[in-house]
Amino acid sequence: MLINNHPLKNANKRQTINLVNSLSGFKSANLIGTKNDQGNFNLALFSSVFHLGAEPPLMGLIVRPDSVPRHTLENIRHNGYYTINHVHKGIYKQAHQTSARYAKEVSEFSAVNLTPELGQLHDAPYVKESYLKIGLHLRDLKPIELNGTWLVIGEVIELRIPEKALKENGYIEIEALGSVAVSSLDHYHSTQLIQTLPYAKP
Amino acid sequence: MLINNHPLKNANKRQTINLVNSLSGFKSANLIGTKNDQGNFNLALFSSVFHLGAEPPLMGLIVRPDSVPRHTLENIRHNGYYTINHVHKGIYKQAHQTSARYAKEVSEFSAVNLTPELGQLHDAPYVKESYLKIGLHLRDLKPIELNGTWLVIGEVIELRIPEKALKENGYIEIEALGSVAVSSLDHYHSTQLIQTLPYAKP
Repeated sequence: MLINNHPLKNANKRQTINLVNSLSGFKSANLIGTKNDQGNFNLALFSSVFHLGAEPPLMGLIVRPDSVPRHTLENIRHNGYYTINHVHKGIYKQAHQTSARYAKEVSEFSAVNLTPELGQLHDAPYVKESYLKIGLHLRDLKPIELNGTWLVIGEVIELRIPEKALKENGYIEIEALGSVAVSSLDHYHSTQLIQTLPYAKP
Repeated sequence: MLINNHPLKNANKRQTINLVNSLSGFKSANLIGTKNDQGNFNLALFSSVFHLGAEPPLMGLIVRPDSVPRHTLENIRHNGYYTINHVHKGIYKQAHQTSARYAKEVSEFSAVNLTPELGQLHDAPYVKESYLKIGLHLRDLKPIELNGTWLVIGEVIELRIPEKALKENGYIEIEALGSVAVSSLDHYHSTQLIQTLPYAKP
């Protein structure tokens, strides 16, 4: 990798990780809720959730098997259902704390003081304190051979949002919900709407 | 899909697209620069660029073949190289305008008044006006059979950034570069750092 035409020869592992994590731009901050084969709830912070398509409603998630939220992939495989919960300004510290290496039998919900909320369609836990909660059914798992990560593809089966947040045109104003943006590994940002632009025509 | 336990029965196509595009949270805004087999430059706005891994430095991009930036995938396949350029507050309107359906022979650079910048490692065009420019080599293309999209995986081979933006610890302060965040399809946001949190321990 060349930086400004000079190879980044002297970067250590930490510098390289920080640098490459900064490149994509702003990221989403979501807590993934799962249930393991012992019936325990797991909660893990991810900045790798992304939109994959609207019809059918599909969302993608990149999981690193060797990273902290390693139980997440195992639980999604086993259970087939999981939840995505937006992180807002009031819970970002607790959300960040879920990335600590807790033992498998410890529920991150209790460890960081967040509350599991259950629906009737499946038994993966939502985060009660989140304002935008999404229930998903696993549809596909794709290995990324280049680095040993996995692309998890889920179909949205349930949404739990404040009624007033859903606009007539279908938009959810996530800024009004206080959802945060993440940059690099550990920078949390609030947002300010600059402008909504109309459909572009030549 | 159930919303607050009521099926979204009456949503039309536009409402559904707006809604599902709002779900993942804040997204990155990047211009992808490519060169086609006639030697013409193409530029297209994407909100689907994401971090895939640091070692090797890999970035992902979701492309919808039936959407406007359809030439992008064709060009990446053909050329093997492409660029990712952060959209900042000074160029978001021009960036948005690249999503208009220009004819294949029209260069979006000229149409929206942005300037191609060339490096020495490859012949895909960077956006001169961007403050964070990334050159990539195509490493893998994965079809997402569920909805006909493609995951494009590239390895970072070159970075062009203002020297002062690169911190001692490897971070690039993308907020200081004015990079914007996107929500749903067409909402552009600036950001304000809330806090940088330390590595979490149990």
